[in-house]
Amino acid sequence: MRMVDLIIKKRDGHELSDEEIKFWIDGYVKGEIPDYQSSAMNMAILFRGMNKREIASLTDHMEHSGEIIDLSDIAGIKVDKHSTGGVGDKTSLVLGPMVAACGGKLAKMSGRGLGHTGGTLDKLESIPGMSIAKTKEEMVEQVNKIGIAIIGQTASLVPADKKLYALRDVTGTVESIPLIAASVMSKKLASGTDAILLDVTVGEGAFMKNMDSAFELARTMVDIGKSLKRDTVAVLSDMSEPLGFAVGNNLEVKEAIASLHGEGPEDLMDLCYTSGSIMLVQSKICKDLQEAREKLHEVVYNGKAFEKLCLMVEAQGGDVEYIKHPEKFEVSKNIIEIRSEADGYIKEINALDIGISAMKLGAGRETLEDTIDMSAGIVLANKIGAKVAKGDLLCTVYTNKPEEEFLPVLDEIKSAYKFTDEPVKILPVIREVVR
Amino acid sequence: MRMVDLIIKKRDGHELSDEEIKFWIDGYVKGEIPDYQSSAMNMAILFRGMNKREIASLTDHMEHSGEIIDLSDIAGIKVDKHSTGGVGDKTSLVLGPMVAACGGKLAKMSGRGLGHTGGTLDKLESIPGMSIAKTKEEMVEQVNKIGIAIIGQTASLVPADKKLYALRDVTGTVESIPLIAASVMSKKLASGTDAILLDVTVGEGAFMKNMDSAFELARTMVDIGKSLKRDTVAVLSDMSEPLGFAVGNNLEVKEAIASLHGEGPEDLMDLCYTSGSIMLVQSKICKDLQEAREKLHEVVYNGKAFEKLCLMVEAQGGDVEYIKHPEKFEVSKNIIEIRSEADGYIKEINALDIGISAMKLGAGRETLEDTIDMSAGIVLANKIGAKVAKGDLLCTVYTNKPEEEFLPVLDEIKSAYKFTDEPVKILPVIREVVR
Repeated sequence: MRMVDLIIKKRDGHELSDEEIKFWIDGYVKGEIPDYQSSAMNMAILFRGMNKREIASLTDHMEHSGEIIDLSDIAGIKVDKHSTGGVGDKTSLVLGPMVAACGGKLAKMSGRGLGHTGGTLDKLESIPGMSIAKTKEEMVEQVNKIGIAIIGQTASLVPADKKLYALRDVTGTVESIPLIAASVMSKKLASGTDAILLDVTVGEGAFMKNMDSAFELARTMVDIGKSLKRDTVAVLSDMSEPLGFAVGNNLEVKEAIASLHGEGPEDLMDLCYTSGSIMLVQSKICKDLQEAREKLHEVVYNGKAFEKLCLMVEAQGGDVEYIKHPEKFEVSKNIIEIRSEADGYIKEINALDIGISAMKLGAGRETLEDTIDMSAGIVLANKIGAKVAKGDLLCTVYTNKPEEEFLPVLDEIKSAYKFTDEPVKILPVIREVVR
Repeated sequence: MRMVDLIIKKRDGHELSDEEIKFWIDGYVKGEIPDYQSSAMNMAILFRGMNKREIASLTDHMEHSGEIIDLSDIAGIKVDKHSTGGVGDKTSLVLGPMVAACGGKLAKMSGRGLGHTGGTLDKLESIPGMSIAKTKEEMVEQVNKIGIAIIGQTASLVPADKKLYALRDVTGTVESIPLIAASVMSKKLASGTDAILLDVTVGEGAFMKNMDSAFELARTMVDIGKSLKRDTVAVLSDMSEPLGFAVGNNLEVKEAIASLHGEGPEDLMDLCYTSGSIMLVQSKICKDLQEAREKLHEVVYNGKAFEKLCLMVEAQGGDVEYIKHPEKFEVSKNIIEIRSEADGYIKEINALDIGISAMKLGAGRETLEDTIDMSAGIVLANKIGAKVAKGDLLCTVYTNKPEEEFLPVLDEIKSAYKFTDEPVKILPVIREVVR
């Protein structure tokens, strides 16, 4: 078998066999197939696509390119949740403790933020002392004890994805649904979970800019999960504006804490209740979504979910005092209020612009080598649909950057907003559930 | 400027600016842009194409990636001829001396054969002593003296093409018309000629399998030439069956010698007269094609063209005795006749199959490292359209390979033939002229 023949086959729109996909992925991970052939293959896949069987096969061989985590020492059904990323997406910090408080078992391996999207690991690390580097054994022990652990991926997990993703990032082949789906699913499958809840974000701040492509990605990933015998469900959630109000690491942790005290933003809580209900049914803890939703409400309002967050932070070496007294979190030196320059209804708060602005304020990283300012970010005062008068607060900006650096960002934040004289129809955060 | 952004731009179907193409080609030649980004770009170009301006720009920057040959020391209009390759294509060995005998100036840099296609340099080297390694100064001197030189490309000519072609060969991006056109034309332009005659072959034995793609390639190359101020004309010639009768290096040289004695195969001579006429008009030696064709006939029949071949062989160190007495050429140990197993008309002699069979007999190379057996090959007894009876000779096979290696090849040669009971319409070798 020659790699060039496989590239030509895919380029000309033909199907690759399981054996051919294995030849590519195994050879690439071993270094026998060079980057330049894999990048040509990725581009051919981007143009030609892959059918269900090919994507399942690609996912399977990527999954088996490295260590497969065995979670069988955790009693019960293990359920994991993955979001395709967004702006202000602190869902895991709220949903995880909620599900665990209901008896769910959540052994989650999470990622870092890049570009305009934040990462759960970075948010967790804004809690002083918090460690996301745990061995598989420590994770299993923690989940058995308190029902939840959120840690970083081990280096040996899905090396094929690490190598392929780094290559796709510099060769213009990130935006391929088969490649995105295989990347996400290979990691989820290798991390040993029994059931998977996917949150596929859609809109300006997401990878998928429109419903059609988001639906296709969701459908593709759910089909992969099914064909590889894992219970997989996807929700499609809105990412045209940021999720909740806070964007930035410790700002989002504070919002997550408030949410677990029953004071969460409507869109974030709606997403957590819907996703959490599905996860509890997947876990066979609840018999239907209605019962699950009631149970989740209960653990938010009786403080059990908040307690789980405290237990997780404690178990991972974090200082629980910050969780109990969020006013202890570091606050940026510069706090700037942005106010409305006109009367009207907010029609748009462009999540991509807000995400990029937050990154420039210090909350994110442009390359994986950049360091993050945990206190930097943006807190919205209102969401799309709100009626504002001239002079009303739109958002508050937090940064430690010098004035010459943050001043141009303020203008970018302002231009993320669009106004209208007419009332705005607000769409629900959950657009669709794909099973 | 970042290469990944240029890849994405092309991937999404947008036009690359001259500056962007320069950034890519210069960076790639300098090693600042890695193979894996160029291969993704090549694949994006294969799918998205390039417009005229982009292709001219790519050609121009490739041309200027290395040495540009200055032929201004040669008096008169320099004209060059390039074929996109085929099976049995000894045109340059016949056409070159014909044009030079009429006063044309031909300073030609030629290539080696690969796969099923032969190369002029290999054919020349079947003449004992013949050297194709000449300096630019030696070439200029030779052309000034006798009107013709056919030598190998210098290593410093169009390094961008050398690097890009080697990459395309292993990444499934050979078959892109913009990339083929820029590759051919950058080399022709860098070699300093004033006028260019392109022979775009079409059919089973050619790169371009059908008229539409051949026409597109011809149109593209002629347009590049024009936009870069060189008089460029293309002929589209048939390559569904081999050109002439002989396939294999010294077998083809012998056929070229016979042709210059006025005993050439009809298709080969038609191609030489048509192409040669255009070249003489391009050279401003003749005022029209009719006058040029008559002049070319004259130099074939009065022996002047044959004399030019002798002078060229002599000037490049070759043993002219072989040209004057072609029976001196080495003959293969094994000579096998293949005879018809049925009565009928020959409907097809698949040029690709014949080319690959000749390569397996020793006449060609699979990789650039393979060595060539100069005496190996196939000589057809008939062409498409011929009426044959059972037992009639179809072709003669020459090889020095052992029986166990050549026996299976004989079957492959047989299956290159198709027969029919009905008389076959024969198409002219020249399908179209593109100006």
